[in-house]
Amino acid sequence: MEYLEKRISNIFHHLSEVDAVFIFNNERVDKNFFYMSGLTDGVFENCGVLCDTDGRMFIFTTTLEEEAARTAEGYAEIVTYKNEESRDGKFIHILSQYKKIGIPYRSISHLFYLHLQSMFDGTEWIDAEKAFRLERMIKSQEEITRITKACEIVSRVADSVPKILKEGMTELDLSAEIDFQMKKMGAHGVAFKTIAAFGCNTSKPHYSGANVSLSRGDVILIDFGAEYMGYSSDITRTYLTGMPGKHLIDIYYTLLSAQKTAIDLIKAGNSSKDVEDEVRKIIDSNENYRGKFIHSLGHSLGMDVHDGPYPDADFNHEFAENMVLTVEPGIYIPGLYGMRIEDDIVVGREGCTVLTTARKEPISYEI
Amino acid sequence: MEYLEKRISNIFHHLSEVDAVFIFNNERVDKNFFYMSGLTDGVFENCGVLCDTDGRMFIFTTTLEEEAARTAEGYAEIVTYKNEESRDGKFIHILSQYKKIGIPYRSISHLFYLHLQSMFDGTEWIDAEKAFRLERMIKSQEEITRITKACEIVSRVADSVPKILKEGMTELDLSAEIDFQMKKMGAHGVAFKTIAAFGCNTSKPHYSGANVSLSRGDVILIDFGAEYMGYSSDITRTYLTGMPGKHLIDIYYTLLSAQKTAIDLIKAGNSSKDVEDEVRKIIDSNENYRGKFIHSLGHSLGMDVHDGPYPDADFNHEFAENMVLTVEPGIYIPGLYGMRIEDDIVVGREGCTVLTTARKEPISYEI
Repeated sequence: MEYLEKRISNIFHHLSEVDAVFIFNNERVDKNFFYMSGLTDGVFENCGVLCDTDGRMFIFTTTLEEEAARTAEGYAEIVTYKNEESRDGKFIHILSQYKKIGIPYRSISHLFYLHLQSMFDGTEWIDAEKAFRLERMIKSQEEITRITKACEIVSRVADSVPKILKEGMTELDLSAEIDFQMKKMGAHGVAFKTIAAFGCNTSKPHYSGANVSLSRGDVILIDFGAEYMGYSSDITRTYLTGMPGKHLIDIYYTLLSAQKTAIDLIKAGNSSKDVEDEVRKIIDSNENYRGKFIHSLGHSLGMDVHDGPYPDADFNHEFAENMVLTVEPGIYIPGLYGMRIEDDIVVGREGCTVLTTARKEPISYEI
Repeated sequence: MEYLEKRISNIFHHLSEVDAVFIFNNERVDKNFFYMSGLTDGVFENCGVLCDTDGRMFIFTTTLEEEAARTAEGYAEIVTYKNEESRDGKFIHILSQYKKIGIPYRSISHLFYLHLQSMFDGTEWIDAEKAFRLERMIKSQEEITRITKACEIVSRVADSVPKILKEGMTELDLSAEIDFQMKKMGAHGVAFKTIAAFGCNTSKPHYSGANVSLSRGDVILIDFGAEYMGYSSDITRTYLTGMPGKHLIDIYYTLLSAQKTAIDLIKAGNSSKDVEDEVRKIIDSNENYRGKFIHSLGHSLGMDVHDGPYPDADFNHEFAENMVLTVEPGIYIPGLYGMRIEDDIVVGREGCTVLTTARKEPISYEI
């Protein structure tokens, strides 16, 4: 309860001009709904939450989710409706008390914005996106505990993968095993669609998997995450098989060294741009890999897997204590193979702590 | 290719006033992107597609997804960018050729709408949501084939579930097994987070599962779906355990009869309201269940699990040939138990075809 009150008061601190903040899951479910209500289980489509500066919270829910909404700890008032007409009636009753309401422009649809505008004549709508982003970027101890647990699960699963690699197994077989192991080890769900890619499919960073069989000599790339109490982890490991050529071993160790450099440099106060530049310098220094690191070094991790970018202008491009981020350099040679090594870290004052502890060596396995 | 051209030309038929239709995955990935580009694998965040009335298609992609984008069949021109600045430059270059552009107001964020507005002075933006909804509601044979395959997978998995029920297993154990079996049977992924609920948790329709153990006498509810080549299935089965009381057996058979009534009534030309009324009449005729069917009878199924509602005013509330819908009456007694039986059907001229063939009897199992 206390953490919720603090979180909400911080959001109002970033958004001092509003009387209330309103999140509504119209076309998509916005994780800000869970962030502000404290709810963890349920789907909550067509549901919402409003908090005001007097400390009141209203949870708007369909009859379908009413019982789940009532598990909200504490003081929330539950407002229930059966259909859109009765929902809009409740909106008018409650929202018309406020003159300036914060809504996140990034997560509400343009359609729902127009709908709100048509219902409330005098209300001023203010973009609350930045307030949520600033607040969600820095994790509380409770959030770090949940992410750490999600990271422990994927680390154990990753360490078990080399044992199950078998010539002839398909990418889908491997992703099925990974998802199964995550749940058996306590994940409440998968954080995103598991990637298991073999051979030339590894060169497409978001390829997810098909009925493609593993052959000796293939590069294997797995990228997966666990969801634990609403929070995500995200790990990537690359394995070589058979007797890998020097060119493959060289890519792997270039990435490992680039990643280690990043991890060594990340700490509160350091520049996210400088760290990314250092990593790119290591990769681009080999002309075979120049321009082959085609994505950013990582992203913020939390309720959403892509919870936001690395610290941007709003953070002066500086790492800050208790940011949770991925560190995931990759090198992709189109049509041939790609590799990526990804860990999740929490930023501290003196450095960073790696939360995903799965092995990164040995790099090659017999299958 | 032909199916894509037909699909796109139909969308322009619904939206005769525009020169082009533009889908962009800014804050969320919009399934309309896959629908219009024909792409099936990849994530495609920060990617988009534009089709114009002259038959041209542009796929906008980050370097990260470029290789995946190039798997698009046929005639698309691939437009690649590294960052937002270069992306916006490409937008200006291509989109400024058109005066009236259709964009789906339901899936684009208000933020991205404002961004587009700020970039293009004279462009008129027109809501394309309805055109996509009308077109996606009626499935092509290729789409029905993919959904049928996704339904076969979940039917086989559902039929295997009774054999693995064991006293003491947790809800998460069961959902792990279900997800594993779906992938082993050919699913490319899960269509949504699998629900496995025991005992009183079954009364919350969207409860997903936790470390709760199965006891003899519990009601068990499972609700899950497979994704196959971008298309979803969605099935729910309820099982009783031990020696269930008459009250439980009565709820189950009330639902089964309500569902059978719906399936018997659904055919092209019949009213979706009438069918829903008939189902509600059966359930509400028992005063213990009156008002306990707290959601709608089903939803449209396709690329999205909730692909849209039952036919609404735009379809004159009438079922039409080749709609694919779920039929899922439920009865929920808060705090005690809930049951739901859900199948997927395709609407035909003379009736409907049930695609999910998993057993609905026997209703009770020894564990």
